[in-house]
Amino acid sequence: MEKAHERKRLREHGVRIGGLPPGPVNAITDVAGVRTAHVTLIRDEPGHAVRTGVTAILPHGGNPFREKVPAAAYVVNGFGKTAGLVQIEELGTLEAPILLTNTFGVGAALEGGLRAMMEQDEGVGGEAGSINIVAAECNDRYLNDMRGLHVRPEHAERAVRLARGSAEGVPPEEGAVGAGTGMVCFGYKGGIGSSSRLVRTEQGSGTVGALVLSNFGRRAELTLLGRPVGRWLEEQAAAARKDASRPLAGMEQGGEGAGEGGSGSFTLSQPQPERSEDGSIIIVLATDLPLDARQLKRLAKRAAFGLARTGSAADHGSGDIVVAFSTAERVAHEPDELAPARRSLREDGPTLADAFRAAAEATEEAIWNSLCAGIGMTGQEGRRVEALPIERIVRWLEG
Amino acid sequence: MEKAHERKRLREHGVRIGGLPPGPVNAITDVAGVRTAHVTLIRDEPGHAVRTGVTAILPHGGNPFREKVPAAAYVVNGFGKTAGLVQIEELGTLEAPILLTNTFGVGAALEGGLRAMMEQDEGVGGEAGSINIVAAECNDRYLNDMRGLHVRPEHAERAVRLARGSAEGVPPEEGAVGAGTGMVCFGYKGGIGSSSRLVRTEQGSGTVGALVLSNFGRRAELTLLGRPVGRWLEEQAAAARKDASRPLAGMEQGGEGAGEGGSGSFTLSQPQPERSEDGSIIIVLATDLPLDARQLKRLAKRAAFGLARTGSAADHGSGDIVVAFSTAERVAHEPDELAPARRSLREDGPTLADAFRAAAEATEEAIWNSLCAGIGMTGQEGRRVEALPIERIVRWLEG
Amino acid sequence: MEKAHERKRLREHGVRIGGLPPGPVNAITDVAGVRTAHVTLIRDEPGHAVRTGVTAILPHGGNPFREKVPAAAYVVNGFGKTAGLVQIEELGTLEAPILLTNTFGVGAALEGGLRAMMEQDEGVGGEAGSINIVAAECNDRYLNDMRGLHVRPEHAERAVRLARGSAEGVPPEEGAVGAGTGMVCFGYKGGIGSSSRLVRTEQGSGTVGALVLSNFGRRAELTLLGRPVGRWLEEQAAAARKDASRPLAGMEQGGEGAGEGGSGSFTLSQPQPERSEDGSIIIVLATDLPLDARQLKRLAKRAAFGLARTGSAADHGSGDIVVAFSTAERVAHEPDELAPARRSLREDGPTLADAFRAAAEATEEAIWNSLCAGIGMTGQEGRRVEALPIERIVRWLEG
Amino acid sequence: MEKAHERKRLREHGVRIGGLPPGPVNAITDVAGVRTAHVTLIRDEPGHAVRTGVTAILPHGGNPFREKVPAAAYVVNGFGKTAGLVQIEELGTLEAPILLTNTFGVGAALEGGLRAMMEQDEGVGGEAGSINIVAAECNDRYLNDMRGLHVRPEHAERAVRLARGSAEGVPPEEGAVGAGTGMVCFGYKGGIGSSSRLVRTEQGSGTVGALVLSNFGRRAELTLLGRPVGRWLEEQAAAARKDASRPLAGMEQGGEGAGEGGSGSFTLSQPQPERSEDGSIIIVLATDLPLDARQLKRLAKRAAFGLARTGSAADHGSGDIVVAFSTAERVAHEPDELAPARRSLREDGPTLADAFRAAAEATEEAIWNSLCAGIGMTGQEGRRVEALPIERIVRWLEG
Repeated sequence: MEKAHERKRLREHGVRIGGLPPGPVNAITDVAGVRTAHVTLIRDEPGHAVRTGVTAILPHGGNPFREKVPAAAYVVNGFGKTAGLVQIEELGTLEAPILLTNTFGVGAALEGGLRAMMEQDEGVGGEAGSINIVAAECNDRYLNDMRGLHVRPEHAERAVRLARGSAEGVPPEEGAVGAGTGMVCFGYKGGIGSSSRLVRTEQGSGTVGALVLSNFGRRAELTLLGRPVGRWLEEQAAAARKDASRPLAGMEQGGEGAGEGGSGSFTLSQPQPERSEDGSIIIVLATDLPLDARQLKRLAKRAAFGLARTGSAADHGSGDIVVAFSTAERVAHEPDELAPARRSLREDGPTLADAFRAAAEATEEAIWNSLCAGIGMTGQEGRRVEALPIERIVRWLEG
Repeated sequence: MEKAHERKRLREHGVRIGGLPPGPVNAITDVAGVRTAHVTLIRDEPGHAVRTGVTAILPHGGNPFREKVPAAAYVVNGFGKTAGLVQIEELGTLEAPILLTNTFGVGAALEGGLRAMMEQDEGVGGEAGSINIVAAECNDRYLNDMRGLHVRPEHAERAVRLARGSAEGVPPEEGAVGAGTGMVCFGYKGGIGSSSRLVRTEQGSGTVGALVLSNFGRRAELTLLGRPVGRWLEEQAAAARKDASRPLAGMEQGGEGAGEGGSGSFTLSQPQPERSEDGSIIIVLATDLPLDARQLKRLAKRAAFGLARTGSAADHGSGDIVVAFSTAERVAHEPDELAPARRSLREDGPTLADAFRAAAEATEEAIWNSLCAGIGMTGQEGRRVEALPIERIVRWLEG
Repeated sequence: MEKAHERKRLREHGVRIGGLPPGPVNAITDVAGVRTAHVTLIRDEPGHAVRTGVTAILPHGGNPFREKVPAAAYVVNGFGKTAGLVQIEELGTLEAPILLTNTFGVGAALEGGLRAMMEQDEGVGGEAGSINIVAAECNDRYLNDMRGLHVRPEHAERAVRLARGSAEGVPPEEGAVGAGTGMVCFGYKGGIGSSSRLVRTEQGSGTVGALVLSNFGRRAELTLLGRPVGRWLEEQAAAARKDASRPLAGMEQGGEGAGEGGSGSFTLSQPQPERSEDGSIIIVLATDLPLDARQLKRLAKRAAFGLARTGSAADHGSGDIVVAFSTAERVAHEPDELAPARRSLREDGPTLADAFRAAAEATEEAIWNSLCAGIGMTGQEGRRVEALPIERIVRWLEG
Repeated sequence: MEKAHERKRLREHGVRIGGLPPGPVNAITDVAGVRTAHVTLIRDEPGHAVRTGVTAILPHGGNPFREKVPAAAYVVNGFGKTAGLVQIEELGTLEAPILLTNTFGVGAALEGGLRAMMEQDEGVGGEAGSINIVAAECNDRYLNDMRGLHVRPEHAERAVRLARGSAEGVPPEEGAVGAGTGMVCFGYKGGIGSSSRLVRTEQGSGTVGALVLSNFGRRAELTLLGRPVGRWLEEQAAAARKDASRPLAGMEQGGEGAGEGGSGSFTLSQPQPERSEDGSIIIVLATDLPLDARQLKRLAKRAAFGLARTGSAADHGSGDIVVAFSTAERVAHEPDELAPARRSLREDGPTLADAFRAAAEATEEAIWNSLCAGIGMTGQEGRRVEALPIERIVRWLEG
């Protein structure tokens, strides 16, 4: 794998998704209080390549167990191993970090998240009761030695401890970081991406942010602003392969990252992965609008609308799962009152309508950002995945 | 069919279900504001018998469309035709009467409920938008000419208009009234029954009320306080049938209502109905505890616990459906605020625990009250269903 | 309202949705056996306009009660009054016609469907048990006197009886027919639309068909092939309004149907409807692939992906509901065997993957066909909705 | 904690639950092929007590990943951390061991199950794709040092490898074994229990087996055959406490296990645990009847009916979860055919009706067997839980 290099986010390429404006850093951390961190595992061992990691998302900087937030989950397609959804569905709250990792790291992530929370709070697992860690996953076995179980509890623990909000003006880490390290999306390097939208109506205003772990999609399906980018890329690749059989050709076909990274790797004869069996996407939505659990489930469903617009039809083998939470109200572990009052957004006006659009738009753009941040990477068994040639795509769109 | 006669409710027979105390009239109307009414259709026409009706339940005396209440539904077994649950699930509110009727009367009940609401509110179906009537049903074809479609919209309309709370100290109408007119439960006359429980903890207090439309169960399953009443009754009936083949015997076997009504009908050779195909129960729960939609769904699930204790295992062919609402908070059709605050009960204390028990206990006792109120009835094609011989049962339990 | 005139379907305008080929008539009736019919109610009465109807869809030409088909439903957004979903969820079968109508016609449609089935089968509501009619709806009050309850049971009954498959080569009726008569979609005339896709993989082949009742969407959201058609139309309309304040201008702004119909109606000062409160879409999917109920639910979820690509984010006030059935296997009302064997498609191959894509593509194109078939219509209180100016849109896309 | 001693199962005490006959060993292993094993961790370390373990249940003796079985899950109350349900819901299959353990052992159980399956099958996590381990839990912190994370992956791995069917005539291990080691039920020692029922109708026959991990319920609720055993026990305990203040009294109050074990422990002043916060029950149902996933979900719901009859109302803090599978049909990981045919039981006859009853009865008796197998145990921080005094209870019932 090669060194990361500066890559631009989708919007910096001049492409705008939808009609709502993004927040200051165009990321989930535009929702005040939300914290994220990545622990990235990249190393080569004899016979196998480690390309994996853990990403943590926390709803706020306090103790989420003592101050839970309203939450909901929605399963777009359930070929996935996410843990923690049963309790979210029943109680409508998130009380612990959301941990993203690879499919075989769920157990370690659960234990690591638990350890972090036990350290933060001695009541956890004691007199204050059990805790519901959320661990979601995608399958990174194409690039990563997933059978090696390289994600360990301490990686999750560390991710929880490192989690921070965005510094002013600093864009989030995206692409091959944390859980995104070994992920592949539409046949290109995927991983972590984020985006946000501002909802500003006469009725009220707020922010909806999305963070995705992208690892889904067949190249031919990839669609940008409705344009069949994937099919065009496949035609280009087919032509390049034809050219490549002639001498001195095909130096550019491998995607931009490859080209820019100067790897010149001979990937021509190696077909890009078809991820239909193992693909997945995890989408985390955060908002500061006061939505209760039922409303957050509605919001979560709209993330699938953004997913749909990237060209995916949520393949059979994809674990496409959305977790949404709101930071506007806290749910105390031990409430002071018998019947605490909490606000929830009225549902019949433009604010919720825009929040729904925001969820779809931020999800779609977050997926694109995960692709735009991709770098070419070689992994397990020498398999290589290229970066999305976004500049060529944009030129084609404009042309 | 014979004239109604005074029948005692379960508790008046000295039998107590569970450990929580009932409310003043031991009925759903113990929840302040809740209103009910029955329109009963009993007449004999050439070749068919009309034994059916409509029951209306309203959450309060105002305009439920403008002042909705939090609500949820739970489907124990979905072999049923209840209409209106999709929107309750999505929005978590009840905004119209709940109408109970026979299976083929759902269309008429929807239209009648709609007419009643259109008359009450000119905005309904106009600029204020559509309205979600809830119509639930059981199949009364054993006694009723269900194919005759005798329930008409005006019956539902009238039931809505007639709905009232309980007068002080007046027990509710039960048994063969309204939608319960032609219903059969555990092979005996079933129909409408109600009960309530008071929740009184140090933490807080409130009321949970249940109203059931009972039309389910095989006689052999009937269980009272864990005792296999149904099997005992079947043994008794078998013995009686044996006796009946001798002269001058068998005058008492038909159930109490029959005996007391003096009908002396020759029901011996006519087996009691086995309702496995068409049985059903509709359970409506009301509470004045401040529960939101998610919590009401949890409460609704506990109604099935009461159902289970009557001996049923929710047969395949049974449409066993629970609708629960809370009167503690109103949800305005057009809220004044962007994000109204509403109270919801803290979930970790004794109050919710007792509310869960209350839902189970009130449901169980409501089913028994529907049976205790039963009278022997002859209906379609001369089929006869006897009243539950509750006094004999109680004597056996005590003996 | 004006006379229907020849309008072309989307594909005839040279626009292709997705990559899979359509079936022979590009409609739900490409699935062998599927039958549809429309009963259209258009008349003007003093003080109100009737613009409504009923559409029936049957899974085959036999008796669906005796020969049920596997079925599932999926609720994209549940602000709707569809009846019949509880039993589909529990039993996984469709046993009666699916009836589409207006929101206040659900009761009449249920009763009419019931009457049709009772006439077809004397066991219905008798010894063969109850029947689960499916009635789905959208709100057509903008053009139709919905409070007048003009849909009567006999209209539904008639629609069931009239239902037929497609004659060879004959495109289906679309637009303002049956339940679609008074519907509005993205601010233009919507209603009935249909499309189909062929699934042809090495693994196997089949057909997926969609029929929609479209009544949703805000104009600004309308998206064709990813292009923001709706925003462009709004800009055009704004410019036209500006022009219209000058003499002799504005003759073309009203949409194509209007223009071609020569109505010259002065619609300028009348804003197009914003349907956020009452919008909805009903999507019926049929397939001859052997999918069981669980798989059909997965298929149904993909219809939302097609919906997403038209620009909608499934507004709060929208009842967006999918019903899917398979004609490949029948489920006998009274099976001959204790444990009948039924085939279901293996899920890990290209056939199901393409079926998912087919559901998304056929839904998207069916929505567009409902718009392309639209004609300008004046209705209740003189409100007017124009046809989508599809030819202008296509020119713009091409330009 | 004291040594295990011979304890009789409920039926050996002469108490019969329900009306259906049990299978040969009255356990889940009466369903041919089903395998179970327990790894029990009991040891005392300075400052903390380890009282926990892992229980594995496998659907058959082959490779469940390659030969999956139809499965479903039902959440009675979702205050739980069970992992693996998302994929069961989507795909309707079980493809790996079900592992039961304590709440904080879920991560270790997932990893251990995974390791066992990776060892059995090199394709797991490789070219054959990911695998869905099911790990369910109850909270054993009252007796066990749950914060010590004593369950390690190797314990789960070992449990999977040890899993065996029942030897002929050998009753299953129950009580404080495997995951049940530290569990508490209705204030007494709970844990593992099992039971089965034979379904034998003219229509067909089969077996339904249940295995429970019991850790729920408040003592006052405990109900046997409808009799308020728990309240009676509390009254007895209150009387005993009163007596105990006098010299030389109170030797019998502690429960049978205590008495028989001769511990004579002074537990009087130590109130029995109230488990409302952390209680839970996991119920695993197996059957050889050919039920598909949808039907298994229906079966799973009936387990709650058995639970209800023990007196529980499924407390807020309880994770009450049912997983059901059928061994009658296998679902190949890579099917040979495009559309394999599988049998599923017709739903309208006595066989499914009895299967529903069987699920309720076997669950109820399995819970009682878990209690009857209980032994008095002292654990974390010297807390003690007594065995249920079943002989006294039976005497009282008979008296």
